[in-house]
Amino acid sequence: MTPDQPALPAGVRLVTFPCHIDGRGSLAFGEFTRLIPFECRRFFMVHDVPAGASRGGHAHRTCHQLIICMSGHLRVEVDDGRRRADILLDRPDMGLYVPPMTWDVQRGYSDPCAQLVFASHFYDADDYIHDYSEFLVVKGIRQ
Amino acid sequence: MTPDQPALPAGVRLVTFPCHIDGRGSLAFGEFTRLIPFECRRFFMVHDVPAGASRGGHAHRTCHQLIICMSGHLRVEVDDGRRRADILLDRPDMGLYVPPMTWDVQRGYSDPCAQLVFASHFYDADDYIHDYSEFLVVKGIRQ
Repeated sequence: MTPDQPALPAGVRLVTFPCHIDGRGSLAFGEFTRLIPFECRRFFMVHDVPAGASRGGHAHRTCHQLIICMSGHLRVEVDDGRRRADILLDRPDMGLYVPPMTWDVQRGYSDPCAQLVFASHFYDADDYIHDYSEFLVVKGIRQ
Repeated sequence: MTPDQPALPAGVRLVTFPCHIDGRGSLAFGEFTRLIPFECRRFFMVHDVPAGASRGGHAHRTCHQLIICMSGHLRVEVDDGRRRADILLDRPDMGLYVPPMTWDVQRGYSDPCAQLVFASHFYDADDYIHDYSEFLVVKGIRQ
């Protein structure tokens, strides 16, 4: 997070995964419904993002997500309509939990970068809000 | 797979994930209980494996796993007690499904390498078989 944004948007949190290190390398693990408050139905892996490109730029009505940077680094802007934070992800043992009804944008991808996202729901086009003004209306922040 | 092992061990299969490519990069996705025959309870991420090290070397009694190489490459040896295959994983849009009661060993890790594993169960020490002879007995192949 940037220093002038000490508080995360509502429900957003960083999850640090337990990590076992021994002579065979490092193993970090996460558990759904325990440390992470949803079941994983779908995952997606993003790579080969061109320099300067951004991804996301929407909110989900019902889908929970967890974003991890497995290799390289990227930045995630998360916004609940009232509070916004810009978070650097640059290690595989840290995840960013993004609850439903949170606007997020990903940018600043390194080359290479391997981004992993877990989702609580299968893909559903109707679950997306692509317009920020509509997002604020649905949140009850603007009319 | 090596050319002299055309058939995979029982139940083992490679899963190719659908991949969307556009001006923002590549996105490959997988779905649990649809393309992948289990729900994901746990995931782990392996990195910083020293040159020459191997991991795994056990079978699970009940746990299903899916192994993906998100960055770099590694080899996975899978063995059902009768048939063995040595599989190269080197791209994020391909996963190796490893059913319960399959012996597996991972080696040949590149530096760097980011390995991702999905598991159907939480960690349970009693689910592991660490002795290959015992594995064959439990499988009913040896007495």
